Amino acid sequence: MSDPVIEAQLAPLRSAVKEQGDIVRQLKENGAGDIDLQRAVAELKHRKKLLEDKELELSPKENFDRLKMEDLLKQRFFYDQSFAIYGGVNGLYDFGPMGCAMKANFLQAWRKHFVLEEQMLEVDTAMLTPEPVLKASGHVDRFQDYMVKDLKNGECFRADHLIEATFEKMLEDKKTPEETKEEIRRLLPLIDGMSKDDMGRTLRQYNMKSPVTGNDLTDPIEFNLMFSTSIGPTGQIKGYLRPETAQGIFVNFKRLLEFNQGKLPFAAAQIGNSFRNEISPRSGLIRVREFTMAEIEHFCDPSDKSHSKFSKVADLEMCLYSACNQMDGKPPEKKTIGEAVKTKLVANETLGYFMARIHLFMVKMGVDPSRLRFRQHLSNEMAHYACDCWDAECKTSYGWVECVGCADRSCYDLTQHTKATGKSSIGKAFKQDAKVITDYLTGLTAEDLNSFEQSLNEKGSVDIVINGKSFTLNKDMIQVKKYQKTLHVEEFVPSVIEPSFGIGRIMYTIFEHNFKIREGDEQRTYLSLPPVIAPYKCSVLPLSQNSEFTPFVEKLSAQLTNLDITHKVDNSSGSIGRRYARTDQIAIPYGITVDFDSLKEPHTATLRERETMEQIRAPISELPQIVKDLSDGVLSRCIGW
Amino acid sequence: MSDPVIEAQLAPLRSAVKEQGDIVRQLKENGAGDIDLQRAVAELKHRKKLLEDKELELSPKENFDRLKMEDLLKQRFFYDQSFAIYGGVNGLYDFGPMGCAMKANFLQAWRKHFVLEEQMLEVDTAMLTPEPVLKASGHVDRFQDYMVKDLKNGECFRADHLIEATFEKMLEDKKTPEETKEEIRRLLPLIDGMSKDDMGRTLRQYNMKSPVTGNDLTDPIEFNLMFSTSIGPTGQIKGYLRPETAQGIFVNFKRLLEFNQGKLPFAAAQIGNSFRNEISPRSGLIRVREFTMAEIEHFCDPSDKSHSKFSKVADLEMCLYSACNQMDGKPPEKKTIGEAVKTKLVANETLGYFMARIHLFMVKMGVDPSRLRFRQHLSNEMAHYACDCWDAECKTSYGWVECVGCADRSCYDLTQHTKATGKSSIGKAFKQDAKVITDYLTGLTAEDLNSFEQSLNEKGSVDIVINGKSFTLNKDMIQVKKYQKTLHVEEFVPSVIEPSFGIGRIMYTIFEHNFKIREGDEQRTYLSLPPVIAPYKCSVLPLSQNSEFTPFVEKLSAQLTNLDITHKVDNSSGSIGRRYARTDQIAIPYGITVDFDSLKEPHTATLRERETMEQIRAPISELPQIVKDLSDGVLSRCIGW
Repeated sequence: MSDPVIEAQLAPLRSAVKEQGDIVRQLKENGAGDIDLQRAVAELKHRKKLLEDKELELSPKENFDRLKMEDLLKQRFFYDQSFAIYGGVNGLYDFGPMGCAMKANFLQAWRKHFVLEEQMLEVDTAMLTPEPVLKASGHVDRFQDYMVKDLKNGECFRADHLIEATFEKMLEDKKTPEETKEEIRRLLPLIDGMSKDDMGRTLRQYNMKSPVTGNDLTDPIEFNLMFSTSIGPTGQIKGYLRPETAQGIFVNFKRLLEFNQGKLPFAAAQIGNSFRNEISPRSGLIRVREFTMAEIEHFCDPSDKSHSKFSKVADLEMCLYSACNQMDGKPPEKKTIGEAVKTKLVANETLGYFMARIHLFMVKMGVDPSRLRFRQHLSNEMAHYACDCWDAECKTSYGWVECVGCADRSCYDLTQHTKATGKSSIGKAFKQDAKVITDYLTGLTAEDLNSFEQSLNEKGSVDIVINGKSFTLNKDMIQVKKYQKTLHVEEFVPSVIEPSFGIGRIMYTIFEHNFKIREGDEQRTYLSLPPVIAPYKCSVLPLSQNSEFTPFVEKLSAQLTNLDITHKVDNSSGSIGRRYARTDQIAIPYGITVDFDSLKEPHTATLRERETMEQIRAPISELPQIVKDLSDGVLSRCIGW
Repeated sequence: MSDPVIEAQLAPLRSAVKEQGDIVRQLKENGAGDIDLQRAVAELKHRKKLLEDKELELSPKENFDRLKMEDLLKQRFFYDQSFAIYGGVNGLYDFGPMGCAMKANFLQAWRKHFVLEEQMLEVDTAMLTPEPVLKASGHVDRFQDYMVKDLKNGECFRADHLIEATFEKMLEDKKTPEETKEEIRRLLPLIDGMSKDDMGRTLRQYNMKSPVTGNDLTDPIEFNLMFSTSIGPTGQIKGYLRPETAQGIFVNFKRLLEFNQGKLPFAAAQIGNSFRNEISPRSGLIRVREFTMAEIEHFCDPSDKSHSKFSKVADLEMCLYSACNQMDGKPPEKKTIGEAVKTKLVANETLGYFMARIHLFMVKMGVDPSRLRFRQHLSNEMAHYACDCWDAECKTSYGWVECVGCADRSCYDLTQHTKATGKSSIGKAFKQDAKVITDYLTGLTAEDLNSFEQSLNEKGSVDIVINGKSFTLNKDMIQVKKYQKTLHVEEFVPSVIEPSFGIGRIMYTIFEHNFKIREGDEQRTYLSLPPVIAPYKCSVLPLSQNSEFTPFVEKLSAQLTNLDITHKVDNSSGSIGRRYARTDQIAIPYGITVDFDSLKEPHTATLRERETMEQIRAPISELPQIVKDLSDGVLSRCIGW
């Protein structure tokens, strides 16, 4: 991005974005009407798109062959289309043994990095969800896309995709007049923000037909993306498959707060499947109908979003693409998260802390840090529940893909469920036995309270006498007091910061970023997954089918099992080179080979590393522990490599 | 069961069962008509029920208070009803932080015990399933219960449950004539086996009404237990939420066989959620609408169900309740699985191997072995796909509950999918390069083949010459040969042995079997979960809120995190005894307490064990490793305990 030759070409596009960005800002400041603002934002998006396309065009090409990678993933059954023997269903995928093992390792690593490290409260809630819950959350009314139907055979298309595809076809068509092409180029980047009426108009204006049959189409129709079903035998309880795991946490907020002894802040987490009935799923694992998510809901006092561990990540340098830079036509910036929070680029420590933790996790899982950025949503692209959002985006052959959303949902959800149930989902935050102290504190004037806090901060504790009984309040209790105070006086609903991970998308990114081809041999493709998520950590290969090798192989396998090291014994025929290639394809990072030298005392075997293909020789008795230490990252490389 | 006083009381009931069991056998042998046989089986069931009721009545009572346990589980949020703030939905439960951590540990242990130990191929397949798949598997037509509806308000009841409840009420009613009671007692055990018409007749005969409104009821109606939905926007792809995870494995059989390089036997496994739209869910976690299963499908040659690791479990003594003993009115028998297979009580080694592994796993997870038995299905209670089945049943306050099914599904499913798709789901079992040898072997006469095998068995390898080229075939290849031979000659479809685990039911059993009350203190309830599944392995408690303890607590917490030991720091106020009681309630097996002695050099702390409440004192620096060794079972007890 800092190549001056490239920058020179981008400069005019950057200024064009900035010019329009300034106009949008000006309009907002002047409180301009909705229509004027929408038009200006549309033009801004158009210019942003031109800039981004050019950037992608000029950026150095990754030497990447998607077909070849998909071939490997299919052949070694990482994942494949579901129900293929029945013709398959779009948007549904099955993970085979290699994908499933990788996914299990990935989720285990996620749990360790987030849940255990932060002592989060993990829950596992129902996927079947009754309608009132999703009515309250806004999903019944607003979780929708627009579709058009073939008037004759009823085939459905997602309206925005159809418009886009038709436009692209028209641009390629030599018969399309140049002025129409000009208009289409202007409209293309606006499709995302089109209303139902806009789309209807566009469909009619360009007389769009079904791309399959050429038949006429209906006007755009709202299509809710949730799968509906009915619960129980009467058919009277309408339900949906949850579209996100978050709601299962929100409806349990009261119990979780009680579990946490009434104290804020705390975070809850959930790993589980969600479902979205996409109109036309595409892009492999990236847009599917059933998918695993891992979501965190961090609940905190809206007036205090500091984070006690922020200093531990403050020095981490990250690639941040602020809304402001996007409007100014500037590229993302590298800066430490500490600096970003200090300058208010990132709104608060808690948001910044999670962004940094997400970055660290993604890189640990094998995402290429040079293809990872955090992009802030522009105010008009936020989901209905969010007030600020930074997406962790990964660059893939499909462009920049949103892999983790990190949204400030403020108090939207808890407020909605409270309204819908008429119950305070906040719950009783304090124990009965604190009542007398609470009443006393609540009775203090703001001034008294301030001086009370001050002496507490200075001395660490304060003695008070209520009704002739004396109490010592120490600093631990002041948080309790503050919260209660706020609760009683302001009745606040906690704010929620939500990091939300799309597991399939991240796994897909990891496949792309780790798919490699051995130099000089186009056929030898492999996956350089980090040991922590590799399906197996180690292979055990006898050099040949000579039966003298068998006891050594069996002993090694037993020792590896003992140390919980997943491994694969490959005693099939085929040259050792061919078998190495096969283990490379399923990303096994280490391989132990038992050969003729192993038969002599002291018994030794070779240990091969996947990336470098280098080998060392070590005593058989020591090899399992070496592999364990390498896999756990205790050892980074063997002496000799 | 071996108490002679009890046995004397049971003896007449046992003979009554045997007498009827013999009649059933006789009828079967003579090829009696369906109606005669059904009537005889019904009477057999009646007598079996009388025997079982008496057995339960006479067996020593567990000192167990279900309400108290449920109170603990709810209060410490192991699990609770879903969507309670919206009034709740029957049959849906959420796992809170403690239940979720326990479940995650349980599944991790399952994976280690089964998947890793046996190198199974784990998959993760779609829950949304298109109709044709479940049509082929038989679920669309046969996976149903009968219900009756209130004619006025449409409320639904499960027909068999309603009949049973009505009968029980009538038995309690003094106004019911004695001869009617007699008839009801005869009918009660027959409800399970009633056909739609039987139930209709019974409902009319006893003029049964809605227990809620007293309104008239409809005749019994078939109600399919699957949740239906439609996939995609057109509404044309009808789908269901899977009722079991097994089908996801069967439809992938071809890919899995290829992944396994065409070799049988192999096992695939899957952990995931399934869904059953129960008409009236009850009994807490035992009968729910959404639940996690863990299923194994072991594919093997139907003519060879031996298991290479059977000898490792052959000496395990288990409690087996054979169909034969059930028909003879005899109690379950304790015998080694080796003996059971040898005497054909258990049909084959593979079935026996899995039963033994299930037994070992259940006990490791905390199931009381004296309340665990394996009961063989009678031929008339088998699911539509099974040809033999042993259930691991656990005794709980709800009676004997089926927790793991271990069924021989024979070739039912693969055959069904093959028929439905017109494709061979078996796939190509062998590599191209073996073709020449294959053709040669296929060409051999049965006699030639036998002598070929014989010399192979004797010498370990055989040299053959085909078209002037010589090959050495060794014993490893003979399996290949046999399978191919069979495939070509008999076109066999592999058999499936299926151990299927209901995770919620097992967890519920573990709760019951580990719920305890401290002697002499009714209020101090706790859970004695084994460390392997305890939500946290360790607590860290400062003796008081004295700030001098803080650095030691923080250091211990950091060291425990480093060793991946889940733990809970409880620095809340409250006496140490009260905090111990709290950690006992969430089943934390070990507790480290930092006290005033910890401040002196050498720094030490106490380590307390939950079961015995005994304590030792050890250097703080050594405690984390001690806890790890205890949790992993490396150490069984500390010196000093």
